Amino acid sequence: MEILKASAANSSPLTPLGFLERAAIVYGDYTSIIYNNTTYTWSQTYRRCRQLASALVSLGIQRKQVVSIFAPNIPAIYELHFAVPMSGAVLNTINFRLDSSAISVLLRHSESKLLFVDTASRQIIMEAISLLPPDTSPPSLYFITDEDVDPKDSDRTYESLIAKGDPDFKWVRPESEWDPIVLNYTSGTTAAPKGVVHSHRGVFLMALDTLIDWSVPKQPVYLWVLPMFHSNGWSYTWATAAVGATNICIRRTDAATIYGAIRRYRVTHMCCAPVILNMLSNAEEENEPLPNPVHIMTGGSPPPASILSKMESRGFILTHGFGMTETAGSLITCAWKPEWDRLPLADRARLKARQGVRTAGATAVDVIDTESGTSVKWDGLSLGEIVIRSGSITLGYLKNPAATAESMKGGWFHTGDMGVIHPDGYIQIKDRLKDVIISGGENVSSVEVESVLYSNSVIHEAAVVARPDEFWGETPCAFVSLKPSQSSQKFSEKEIIEFCRSKLPHYMVPKTVVVVDELPKTSTGKIQKFLLRDMAKNLGPLRVSKM
Amino acid sequence: MEILKASAANSSPLTPLGFLERAAIVYGDYTSIIYNNTTYTWSQTYRRCRQLASALVSLGIQRKQVVSIFAPNIPAIYELHFAVPMSGAVLNTINFRLDSSAISVLLRHSESKLLFVDTASRQIIMEAISLLPPDTSPPSLYFITDEDVDPKDSDRTYESLIAKGDPDFKWVRPESEWDPIVLNYTSGTTAAPKGVVHSHRGVFLMALDTLIDWSVPKQPVYLWVLPMFHSNGWSYTWATAAVGATNICIRRTDAATIYGAIRRYRVTHMCCAPVILNMLSNAEEENEPLPNPVHIMTGGSPPPASILSKMESRGFILTHGFGMTETAGSLITCAWKPEWDRLPLADRARLKARQGVRTAGATAVDVIDTESGTSVKWDGLSLGEIVIRSGSITLGYLKNPAATAESMKGGWFHTGDMGVIHPDGYIQIKDRLKDVIISGGENVSSVEVESVLYSNSVIHEAAVVARPDEFWGETPCAFVSLKPSQSSQKFSEKEIIEFCRSKLPHYMVPKTVVVVDELPKTSTGKIQKFLLRDMAKNLGPLRVSKM
Repeated sequence: MEILKASAANSSPLTPLGFLERAAIVYGDYTSIIYNNTTYTWSQTYRRCRQLASALVSLGIQRKQVVSIFAPNIPAIYELHFAVPMSGAVLNTINFRLDSSAISVLLRHSESKLLFVDTASRQIIMEAISLLPPDTSPPSLYFITDEDVDPKDSDRTYESLIAKGDPDFKWVRPESEWDPIVLNYTSGTTAAPKGVVHSHRGVFLMALDTLIDWSVPKQPVYLWVLPMFHSNGWSYTWATAAVGATNICIRRTDAATIYGAIRRYRVTHMCCAPVILNMLSNAEEENEPLPNPVHIMTGGSPPPASILSKMESRGFILTHGFGMTETAGSLITCAWKPEWDRLPLADRARLKARQGVRTAGATAVDVIDTESGTSVKWDGLSLGEIVIRSGSITLGYLKNPAATAESMKGGWFHTGDMGVIHPDGYIQIKDRLKDVIISGGENVSSVEVESVLYSNSVIHEAAVVARPDEFWGETPCAFVSLKPSQSSQKFSEKEIIEFCRSKLPHYMVPKTVVVVDELPKTSTGKIQKFLLRDMAKNLGPLRVSKM
Repeated sequence: MEILKASAANSSPLTPLGFLERAAIVYGDYTSIIYNNTTYTWSQTYRRCRQLASALVSLGIQRKQVVSIFAPNIPAIYELHFAVPMSGAVLNTINFRLDSSAISVLLRHSESKLLFVDTASRQIIMEAISLLPPDTSPPSLYFITDEDVDPKDSDRTYESLIAKGDPDFKWVRPESEWDPIVLNYTSGTTAAPKGVVHSHRGVFLMALDTLIDWSVPKQPVYLWVLPMFHSNGWSYTWATAAVGATNICIRRTDAATIYGAIRRYRVTHMCCAPVILNMLSNAEEENEPLPNPVHIMTGGSPPPASILSKMESRGFILTHGFGMTETAGSLITCAWKPEWDRLPLADRARLKARQGVRTAGATAVDVIDTESGTSVKWDGLSLGEIVIRSGSITLGYLKNPAATAESMKGGWFHTGDMGVIHPDGYIQIKDRLKDVIISGGENVSSVEVESVLYSNSVIHEAAVVARPDEFWGETPCAFVSLKPSQSSQKFSEKEIIEFCRSKLPHYMVPKTVVVVDELPKTSTGKIQKFLLRDMAKNLGPLRVSKM
């Protein structure tokens, strides 16, 4: 047995790029992409990607160099998920909600050689380029145009670059399956964004794994609501090629556009953040029944019962999962049991709110005590950090060996999320690790305190962080904004504390409440708790907070 | 980019064993296996497999040692696909149609430490053990009993071994994903059987890949018609755990048993050889409609139009694929296009008879000229050898480095099958490489000549091999047996040759026809062409066969 080893025939590097090559044969005449009046077939997409890859090589782009794109969900960003790695380079999709200063930082950090720009974003990109320090050579720019090409850029367009390429180009295979394929910067609820690098092997495994996990059939109609820049659309950028999907691209993600696309193209699958669910379920004017069941994969925060109920009654079928940029997609999902269908809505929502279990392809998921490193009890109560071992975990953070080593310590990837394991083995996230407040040795989940605050009808938004406390170490400090109708009223901070007392154990009740006009947020709408933590710290330690 | 490497968190060895661990959580209370009156749940199966693995370790079985089983499709052979590798050992499933002499050879070659035996096969195994040479220590025997345990073996039963094991055993993970997990001996249409070894990685990839390729949904009802000893049931032994299937085990595979199981358990999926399709489609007494559509994956030889039509009208949905013991499952399948559904039956059958395209997870499949090694034209005519590169290709042949190197030469796995690529990229097998007859420099596909012979109503079975020829090098030599009603008649060999002349180009017509009572076959029913080749050679070279 010992002498039987890997050989060239059985150890060819795993890569998702082959999905496209195969789709051109199996689904060659079927539609790959629809965007407004533009339609491609899979053989056209394969041809265009090879042309583009060949053009990139001709421009001197080398293996493992970074090529970036700044665009919403238009066909180019889909194509570049194949074309850029087919040239040997690494694709960096930039969050198109960032400002010029942040974009500039990422272009410099990634040493991006070339940047594809949606023409609509010309201005912000020009600003970003102008902000690059003098010692940084700016990337070459190529513009993606929807309709009229600005004559100034006629030789620098995405389409003209494709036209120069060789459609029979022998695309560049990775030398190793561990070669990088994509670079994604995290949105940064903490200070500096980190550059998450994934390997060909990692996203290949995620793509196959998630297709099985979500039982995706052949030739689904996939609507691109989740931005492709966001963790590569949870790897569906590649997975849809493996099953010959029709990719419906849309520039805007308002309710009318989404419902319109669903009806027009008979969409079967889409991924999106919870904020979209909220919007879709509240779109009163969209009250026609769906033409067919639409499967939605969502993650980020659990769908509340009211939204779940509204979405189900409209014909959506929701799957709740958990992933991070570092996991390449949903590595933990709330695998649904048929028997749960018979439960009342509140119970279904409670079960579906749990993040769930690892996918079949992942090696292991655990919740470990942050002190001892041992697994917590399966009691739904013992809080620990969620850790993962899987082939689709990131290679690490670009130029950040310290953060890489810290996130991988002990042979686990540390998600930074705190959760519990229920007696049935399903995991539920309770809080971000750094958001947990340790008051008198007890872990207080900021999320649980926030959900009580949200249940008060006068409160619009709430965020709870730790405030230093001389006696308890830390105590919960709540920042809240009030609903417009309430803002003019004087609403007492004491009243809010009393409200929490009626709903929470004493140690979880905020000792401090600060009413603000608006909470600070990132470009993707996440509340920036690190700023609130600073504010809480600047309030100084509480001195007389003994109970 | 260069410093980002694999680490423990993202390079945990890929293994299908984790499917079972996960199934115990997600599908814990659902049925894993049904066999007559025996039913297990997934949590029971996980528990039993851990007990068994722990018992094997207690018996002194070590990593990479071989544990064998000789049994039909009963629950034990399913469990051992997890339990044996969970002990670190390698599972060897022995073809239960072999005779004692062949079994003896395999036990010796594999150095099997332990053998699980279906009690019904006690006699043949005892004979096999007695045939082991004196220098070979026989494996320990454990008997699997259906009903009454023979008192002599009461402490050597499968169930008593499980009872001794620890249900909380921390199962042994592979140290590397390249570690061996199974050993399967090929059935040997050629002389000596070869021991095909697969790695954990290989069958993990095959299992995920085939689930996507066949669009297998969650919790299918899977009927075990294909023997699990046969290439590990094309890796469905593991894949069914990944989707929480109900595995229906049956000891016999006659039409009544299969139809009975389909109706009783509402079977949704099964794999089988073409001979089973023939049997199912001809079972006149089974004329009730199926309770639901039943998906069948078949391979080995293409389904003829008449069988396809009969099976479809009965409610079966056929997928035709190609695999070998060395590929761990169907690596090439005839991916079906919806537009083909509108074609007449003859055209559908012609398209479905093609083996097809590689699966999404495979790296590459090609057909190469055996002389030059270059790819053949996509013209449906140019014959070459089918070669494959894929993560699920075997590690090689046990104790046979020469055969391993030969099969992997040039960085491809050589299937030994000759085929063509049609203009649409679909591959079709024409013959086994060694069965191709080279007559005057032209390749003659023995399969094509045989199919003409089969179209003659008096011929029961036919096999065509090369006979040495002084002028042409080789010429086709046909061995045929006649249908019972014809046997008594004198049927002239010349008449057969004339029949072939009316249907085939001159160079493909057999120059020699030999009528025999029966063609020699392997235990799995394959015609042993190597014996016929010897017979043809013993006829001596043809001397006057110029046209």
